[in-house]
Amino acid sequence: MFLARLIVAFVVALLGSTSLRATEARSEIENVLRAQETAWNRGDIDAFMDGYWRSEKTAFVSGDEVSRGWQNVLDRYKKKYSDRAKMGTLTFSDLEITPLSDDSAVVLGSWKLKRVNDEPHGRFTLIFRHFPDGWKIVHDHTSAAEK
Amino acid sequence: MFLARLIVAFVVALLGSTSLRATEARSEIENVLRAQETAWNRGDIDAFMDGYWRSEKTAFVSGDEVSRGWQNVLDRYKKKYSDRAKMGTLTFSDLEITPLSDDSAVVLGSWKLKRVNDEPHGRFTLIFRHFPDGWKIVHDHTSAAEK
Repeated sequence: MFLARLIVAFVVALLGSTSLRATEARSEIENVLRAQETAWNRGDIDAFMDGYWRSEKTAFVSGDEVSRGWQNVLDRYKKKYSDRAKMGTLTFSDLEITPLSDDSAVVLGSWKLKRVNDEPHGRFTLIFRHFPDGWKIVHDHTSAAEK
Repeated sequence: MFLARLIVAFVVALLGSTSLRATEARSEIENVLRAQETAWNRGDIDAFMDGYWRSEKTAFVSGDEVSRGWQNVLDRYKKKYSDRAKMGTLTFSDLEITPLSDDSAVVLGSWKLKRVNDEPHGRFTLIFRHFPDGWKIVHDHTSAAEK
């Protein structure tokens, strides 16, 4: 009986620690995205880019285009959003954060830019991986509503 | 010395089995995608849908729209590609299959439909998970080149 209880306690602890890790992962990943919003909305694309893995493998996919590498993703953002008016006010919503393993997760979410003359919006799928300096986006597939 | 050799042999075996698993995963996932192409190109959307997880959680993302659930993804395909001419000939290319864990992987690829009057094309990001009946797409984010 003692052994049985011990096994139950062990399994409960194991499941608990797994779900605790998943909860922590979700919370840390949401913090990365909230930090990105805040950075964007003060016009700071460099700080926004802290959310991405600083690697030549980082991928940003949109339409039929793939930007490969952290620097190219940064350059694309700076070219496309070359002034404060074009950046507008960014909101992320409907975040669904699904851990895939201890060090990887997928996020589905909505994005919206509120600008003076338009309000582009759409969805993103992000692959996050956990690194020594935290959770980072390694792959971003973003699409927009048709105009 | 014997112990050191044993440890080295163990680590090599462990690394070998990890990379073997990754190689197997890549090959099995590519087979799923090739089977999808073949099914599509004989006009069999039901068989094409075998590549997707048969779950209410399965997600298909495009533009600003999310179709949720295997049945809704099937319905969307059947509505959008309601006859053989609209289906055209599908080709997947540039497949980059990246395992994230033993039972999950992300795939970046290109798609193209060759039809009589146009040739729509774009990119997809797929999340695959491994189930008892094999690797299945649990999340599909597809985008098209702007017309």
